[in-house]
Amino acid sequence: MKLDIHEVNLAVEAAFREHGSGNVQMPPKVYITLPDGDFRTMPAYMPAEQLAGIKCVNVHPENPGKGLPTVMALTTILDPGTGLPLAILNSTGLTDLRTGAAGAIATKYLAGKKTVIVGLVGTGRQAAAQLGAISREIDVAGVRIWSRKEASAGKFAEKFSQFDCRTGTLPFVCDSDVIVTTTPSRSPVVQGEWVHEGTHINAIGADAPGKEELEPELLKRAMVIVDDPTQAIHSGEINVPIRNGLFSPAEIAGTLGEVVLGLKKRTNSNQITIFDSTGLAIQDLAIASLAMKTGEFQELEFP
Amino acid sequence: MKLDIHEVNLAVEAAFREHGSGNVQMPPKVYITLPDGDFRTMPAYMPAEQLAGIKCVNVHPENPGKGLPTVMALTTILDPGTGLPLAILNSTGLTDLRTGAAGAIATKYLAGKKTVIVGLVGTGRQAAAQLGAISREIDVAGVRIWSRKEASAGKFAEKFSQFDCRTGTLPFVCDSDVIVTTTPSRSPVVQGEWVHEGTHINAIGADAPGKEELEPELLKRAMVIVDDPTQAIHSGEINVPIRNGLFSPAEIAGTLGEVVLGLKKRTNSNQITIFDSTGLAIQDLAIASLAMKTGEFQELEFP
Repeated sequence: MKLDIHEVNLAVEAAFREHGSGNVQMPPKVYITLPDGDFRTMPAYMPAEQLAGIKCVNVHPENPGKGLPTVMALTTILDPGTGLPLAILNSTGLTDLRTGAAGAIATKYLAGKKTVIVGLVGTGRQAAAQLGAISREIDVAGVRIWSRKEASAGKFAEKFSQFDCRTGTLPFVCDSDVIVTTTPSRSPVVQGEWVHEGTHINAIGADAPGKEELEPELLKRAMVIVDDPTQAIHSGEINVPIRNGLFSPAEIAGTLGEVVLGLKKRTNSNQITIFDSTGLAIQDLAIASLAMKTGEFQELEFP
Repeated sequence: MKLDIHEVNLAVEAAFREHGSGNVQMPPKVYITLPDGDFRTMPAYMPAEQLAGIKCVNVHPENPGKGLPTVMALTTILDPGTGLPLAILNSTGLTDLRTGAAGAIATKYLAGKKTVIVGLVGTGRQAAAQLGAISREIDVAGVRIWSRKEASAGKFAEKFSQFDCRTGTLPFVCDSDVIVTTTPSRSPVVQGEWVHEGTHINAIGADAPGKEELEPELLKRAMVIVDDPTQAIHSGEINVPIRNGLFSPAEIAGTLGEVVLGLKKRTNSNQITIFDSTGLAIQDLAIASLAMKTGEFQELEFP
């Protein structure tokens, strides 16, 4: 299946617009803890697009050693009028793309620049998705790359040679216009002193209780935008600082939906902006709907 | 797919035993409201059986007019060790059976008799499933049948001619050892005065906020057993009386899991016992696991 990334970005942006307008039903994701990971259930309904469904997605960090991806996802789309399952999609790749799209939308609205240097902290599949999506919305003049394993940074730079890529230390990479963090870290990787005024950060990695990538001091200095407050408080970048009393839910500046609607925006060019992404079920519905128009399908008998 | 009903009953009973022992993860089902119905997402994990998964099920009362069942269900079974989807099952028929099984288990433990007259209030698919499951666990000496439409009661009696079936008025049908209510009613159908001492009731129909089938006075006189307290309070037979202050969650006598474990039981032969069924995700996992051993499958590529 070949999706146009700009179209994905637009579809996901439309979903955030609906979310910002309060026009969706989307309970917080439900977590089930398994011995070596977890799985999450994400149902939603977006009346404007006549889209209803559920994504089910696991996170098993030991999977690569077993020849399987860490994250795998299935999305079931239902006809809202009858509840009939219309499609079951392998949404493992789609999940990467829809998360990349959220980062691209946040960057487009919040970075405050048309041309940027992007600093990547972490070089996994999501780093690639973020770079791919962001570069479709604004001009990427250069990419700075850091990975815990130096070799991974080098490989990533080779793979994305269409960009002006440089690998380097964390302070070097954080000296960028847009920082994208995509690590599975459980303690801050990015120190506040490395981040200059006016930077926009997509904080993507923290998606479960206990995970964090940014020094809490950075959150205090910044305008913090979340995708969904309930999910972000539970499992986003702000979850650990909130539990430790270093950040308060009242300090959340707004949601990405409100940003897309123009209700919330960067107040000046020196402000640091942070987008705390946890991933919304409506992003999954939006991209599934797009995939259903272009993908290849196998008929299954039902009911 | 041909499942042995007694085996289904045993598998579902084992799931309730795990539930009663506190050995399962099962968040309350999540409801999404659609214009003409709803859909419910039910994830769970049962470590003892190494079973993890999700059932997604809709309820659209107008569907029969559109040539579709009111209720349709899909169950996805995941490998707990890796999160890999192992099977996606059409669980529309399985849902009927696993609900029937819960009724059969409740009847076996609570009716206090080896031979019973069963009174059916409602004659839909679930009435058939309950009768089929109960009759595999205890001796059914006769069946009394009431439906809002008299013709439906007659048709049901014809279809189940292996039993001594009689159709009749509600008071006649409620004068039974075991009453099974399976209507979609939003106001009490069964009056307390019709129910004699020692009766066991499977209250199956109420499975969403606002639904109820029994006069609240009956609940006050009876020992009320639920499948899951949180779900029952939200959407079971007790949901309306609780909202109206006519019943209190503290009056719940116990769970079916506790009954299976022998921790809760009928205290004397004159007691009225009520099983308030809402349907648990672990019942769906149990029957899916059984179906996976006997069913026919189509291979799908993943991931």
